[in-house]
Amino acid sequence: MNPDLRRERAAATFNPELITHILDGSPEKTRRRREIENLIMNDPDFQHEDYNFLTRSQRYEVAVKKSASMVKKLREFGIADPDEIMWFKKLQLVNFVEPVGLNYSMFIPTLLNQGTTAQQEKWLHSSKGLQIIGTYAQTEMGHGTHLRGLETTATYDPKTQEFILNSPTVTSIKWWPGGLGKTSNHAIVLAQLFTQGKCYGLHAFIVPIREIGTHKPLPGITVGDIGPKFGYEEMDNGYLKMDNYRIPRENMLMKYAQVKPDGTYVKPLSDKLTYGTMVFVRSFLVGEAARSLSKACTIAIRYSAVRHQSEIKPGEPEPQILDFQTQQYKLFPLLATAYAFQFVGAYMKETYHRINEGIGQGDLSELPELHALTAGLKAFTTWTANAAIEECRMACGGHGYSHSSGIPNIYVTFTPACTFEGENTVMMLQTARFLMKSYDHVHSGELVCGMVSYLNDLPSQRIQPQHVAVRPTVVDISSPDSLTEAYKLRAARLVDIAAKNLRNEMSHRKSKEVAWNLTSVDLVRASEAHCHYVVVKLFSEKLLKIQDKSIQAVLRNLCLLYCLYGISQKAGDFLQGNIMTGSQITQVNQRIMELLTIIRPNAVALVDAFDFKDVTLGSVLGRYDGNVYENLFEWAKKSPLNQTEVHESYHKHLKPLQSKL
Amino acid sequence: MNPDLRRERAAATFNPELITHILDGSPEKTRRRREIENLIMNDPDFQHEDYNFLTRSQRYEVAVKKSASMVKKLREFGIADPDEIMWFKKLQLVNFVEPVGLNYSMFIPTLLNQGTTAQQEKWLHSSKGLQIIGTYAQTEMGHGTHLRGLETTATYDPKTQEFILNSPTVTSIKWWPGGLGKTSNHAIVLAQLFTQGKCYGLHAFIVPIREIGTHKPLPGITVGDIGPKFGYEEMDNGYLKMDNYRIPRENMLMKYAQVKPDGTYVKPLSDKLTYGTMVFVRSFLVGEAARSLSKACTIAIRYSAVRHQSEIKPGEPEPQILDFQTQQYKLFPLLATAYAFQFVGAYMKETYHRINEGIGQGDLSELPELHALTAGLKAFTTWTANAAIEECRMACGGHGYSHSSGIPNIYVTFTPACTFEGENTVMMLQTARFLMKSYDHVHSGELVCGMVSYLNDLPSQRIQPQHVAVRPTVVDISSPDSLTEAYKLRAARLVDIAAKNLRNEMSHRKSKEVAWNLTSVDLVRASEAHCHYVVVKLFSEKLLKIQDKSIQAVLRNLCLLYCLYGISQKAGDFLQGNIMTGSQITQVNQRIMELLTIIRPNAVALVDAFDFKDVTLGSVLGRYDGNVYENLFEWAKKSPLNQTEVHESYHKHLKPLQSKL
Repeated sequence: MNPDLRRERAAATFNPELITHILDGSPEKTRRRREIENLIMNDPDFQHEDYNFLTRSQRYEVAVKKSASMVKKLREFGIADPDEIMWFKKLQLVNFVEPVGLNYSMFIPTLLNQGTTAQQEKWLHSSKGLQIIGTYAQTEMGHGTHLRGLETTATYDPKTQEFILNSPTVTSIKWWPGGLGKTSNHAIVLAQLFTQGKCYGLHAFIVPIREIGTHKPLPGITVGDIGPKFGYEEMDNGYLKMDNYRIPRENMLMKYAQVKPDGTYVKPLSDKLTYGTMVFVRSFLVGEAARSLSKACTIAIRYSAVRHQSEIKPGEPEPQILDFQTQQYKLFPLLATAYAFQFVGAYMKETYHRINEGIGQGDLSELPELHALTAGLKAFTTWTANAAIEECRMACGGHGYSHSSGIPNIYVTFTPACTFEGENTVMMLQTARFLMKSYDHVHSGELVCGMVSYLNDLPSQRIQPQHVAVRPTVVDISSPDSLTEAYKLRAARLVDIAAKNLRNEMSHRKSKEVAWNLTSVDLVRASEAHCHYVVVKLFSEKLLKIQDKSIQAVLRNLCLLYCLYGISQKAGDFLQGNIMTGSQITQVNQRIMELLTIIRPNAVALVDAFDFKDVTLGSVLGRYDGNVYENLFEWAKKSPLNQTEVHESYHKHLKPLQSKL
Repeated sequence: MNPDLRRERAAATFNPELITHILDGSPEKTRRRREIENLIMNDPDFQHEDYNFLTRSQRYEVAVKKSASMVKKLREFGIADPDEIMWFKKLQLVNFVEPVGLNYSMFIPTLLNQGTTAQQEKWLHSSKGLQIIGTYAQTEMGHGTHLRGLETTATYDPKTQEFILNSPTVTSIKWWPGGLGKTSNHAIVLAQLFTQGKCYGLHAFIVPIREIGTHKPLPGITVGDIGPKFGYEEMDNGYLKMDNYRIPRENMLMKYAQVKPDGTYVKPLSDKLTYGTMVFVRSFLVGEAARSLSKACTIAIRYSAVRHQSEIKPGEPEPQILDFQTQQYKLFPLLATAYAFQFVGAYMKETYHRINEGIGQGDLSELPELHALTAGLKAFTTWTANAAIEECRMACGGHGYSHSSGIPNIYVTFTPACTFEGENTVMMLQTARFLMKSYDHVHSGELVCGMVSYLNDLPSQRIQPQHVAVRPTVVDISSPDSLTEAYKLRAARLVDIAAKNLRNEMSHRKSKEVAWNLTSVDLVRASEAHCHYVVVKLFSEKLLKIQDKSIQAVLRNLCLLYCLYGISQKAGDFLQGNIMTGSQITQVNQRIMELLTIIRPNAVALVDAFDFKDVTLGSVLGRYDGNVYENLFEWAKKSPLNQTEVHESYHKHLKPLQSKL
């Protein structure tokens, strides 16, 4: 092992294994996760291809191969629990994305949620075994977020008892669904349902797109790959154009809405239940934000302990770059953020399962808040992690830009999360809508509960902007609880401002919608402040649940850094709201510098605690053993451009030019 | 043309052509630029390959072919002026980077700057015609920014009158130089010079690495490609390992330092002159930041005018997404930034040429400030543009992630500028060193001049933190000049704080260097504030030089938006320094929203004024004619994955699995 890393690990004030247990949920879960990971590592069939050296077509093929072998292996090992499948996949795929992924994450769940028992019997078994490979085709070339704008039509023909599917325009072509281009032979297609001359809005249809046995596109179907992207190279995001394409009536998912054989439309009872999947996927993305950022931090911090550069004192040996204050200031707030998001992710998962049980028993009361909270937190955490991963890359200097660092791949694989499953700005505005509703409730005399309960204090004028100046400033910058209060006041103030500006715009304009648009920047700001408060609150509360003193101490410092860094970055909000004074902000900045020094000796142990295997990090810079340079050279030698000593382009283009001179 | 874009263009309040002239420098320069661009467009040899569909090896080959044909074409067309060559290259390369680029940007200039007349005679002609293809090998695997840490050695052997070059460790392997891997047959190698048993530090040597005629690596040379990166796919950034590799004494560049045949070392007279190249390259990068961000803005704003999505009022047609306040708030401050950086880039270029003439006449007086300013502005503009390009991409929704948008390529091609030619944090600290020196000058009674002259006011206590509270707040948020004053006060305050904290740390610690490290976050903050002030000042001053009233009005709004947006983002600084009050910050935020509405009708014309050809943008979303969707479909059909109807991996991996079920 690299001597610097050995020294770092020896000097840590705590045992990282204990934090690993907290992050996994329990020592037992850590044990089981490792057991599953070792199944793969010890499996002779497991191969590790470095995707960096493959063409897109080769990457696609490796990914398909991995998917196919995974189906067999999961059966062989008898792994069926969703968490355990996830652990298995994360390692087995080695950061490849899975062309058949949507079969499991969208096709099957939608079939289960919206299909009748007969439909499930017909399609479920073969889709689980990949005889049917399904995807979920919603987004169209010209339509994303706004579902009502989708143009694909499904017109019922009672004579043949079929739906006729059409893509009437270029913009209506289904575009982006994962696995649609080359892999899937079925898709659940969202289309505007027409029957008996009337449009009944969006419904879901199971559409065969390729022939079983030959995999050729069926007549009436135009399907293909949408072309290369920033990342997801091995994923065949696809397009689908349908021309008078007929499917049987039974292919409409009919658990809720139905079309009778004669064409009569039967309305669904409730449409709130479709919230469930969205909430689940978005809360999963919060966890993904945490994991992706944790990976990037692991790489950047280990490498910063191995890399020596420049000098602090002339003549002395070059220090580890982790000893530079600027480097600590770049990385430790991101590390604190990674931990914050880990705890938020775990909270979201628990909450989802708790509320989901309630839904099972018919209790939908908490769903609106959960829906609003996941929307905002998905946006807040993915935006933050997105920028933070790039900061980690750039903190690795030039080598960060090489694919050997692994960070570019983490970034391009993660960044779509800012857009898919709900574009982030739209998500923030959904949260804002809930905040405004809650605000109105409070102002009409009702109390609100949950994370927005601080709004109950607003009408009592305690935190109205015009009165805050007289409120004594009592923020204790060494107390996570007190800092949580400060974030709460900031959120309350920005919600209040947005609500008042919205009301003001409404009084000047005719329409509520125009006023909403003209207040939307304020509304996003309010949502961000609300989400920031929730993150701070959850991190602070997590500290109380930690028994081990050494662990509590180190996480408390990270929590303080997270809180204070946010205040420093948004100092204007805290000053303008008279939540903190100018001299307190100065203290905040000083305290941040002290915390950097305090965290420094534990930095490597704190990323070790994330417990990523080298193969998952996919990084030469972030190797656990720290043997960076030898392996950088070995890695480079494998570059496809090095397969020949002289590249053919020399003979084709340079030599003829040189001989002319 | 797309009807939305036609309408946008018709509604603009100014003629974009007039801004194009300003950006180019004069109507004559615009004319000449277009003339050169048309030479290429009308040249039957000119081919446009879409790099997105090529493998790395194919991209490399196309880039080499383009380089080779460019040498011929520039001669054929008689183009020799550096600006004109740049215009030519930008279009002819179509966003490919050039494997032989360093031959022209580094090898030849270094030969000219540091080679004797005899050396120039020997190598210049053949390197201009690419018989010698040179690169510049400075960075090593373990050493970047800190030049003294480089490990490569050149030991003089007086018996044979040769230098013996060695890469003594893995970390000493030359790593990263562009074109080194496969393309170059020579490199200027930076190595520690040893002669007569003593080390004299870094010197430059011309090292043949591949045999002329066969292009095979020479004995003693290990050379190759360092592997795939985030971008620069067609560039063969390389490694170079030398084992007792001998070169003649005459291959050391000896215009300044010399080694006599007997091994006697002769010192150079001055080493300040090597500043020149650095200053030139860094000021060029400021212009690159402007151009890259301008491209990304062009794409995002045109697409936002073409894209319709969601609804403001239910039942009404989906609006252009550019009508959403949140979208304007994302894009217009970036557009204002692009304009600001365009003017800063032009200023840097002028200043460099002015000062360079002075240097020619022996006047080095302005060089230190210019050196400090370019370092900071390089960092400030590249960091800002880097984040801004990604914001443009994400503002395009899902399609931004597709390579058809062109923005991922703009990003990965631009982002290395944050690291190369001086890592940005190190650059900021160089500027800080100059600021601290100037601060000390002022405090010892000397006046300083140039951009830092505001520091002269500091000792008079007018802007000392403890006194500011009584100073009346007089910032007029509608006046660019007054806002420039506000930025000046902010910079002065942060320089003052950094200087006092530095002094304070020094009084508590033994060493100046440790104190510097422990103040470096404050120092970077001071440099950023200084650079921000310079940008605001240059933008404001530019307005005064614009004659046309309609143009002045529209640029004035952009300038105001740039200033106010910065204040809003850094409100804490302006509040804490008592430069502005809380209610003024509220006004700033309101005024920003008004400016968004004012700028809205001119947004498309403002990006048209950048005058990028479609082929340079490389974007389906940003096409001048706005025919996005049809072309997106056409582009996708060319995806290599669509060359076959059924991908071979189906037969290899999926079919066997399916038939087992």
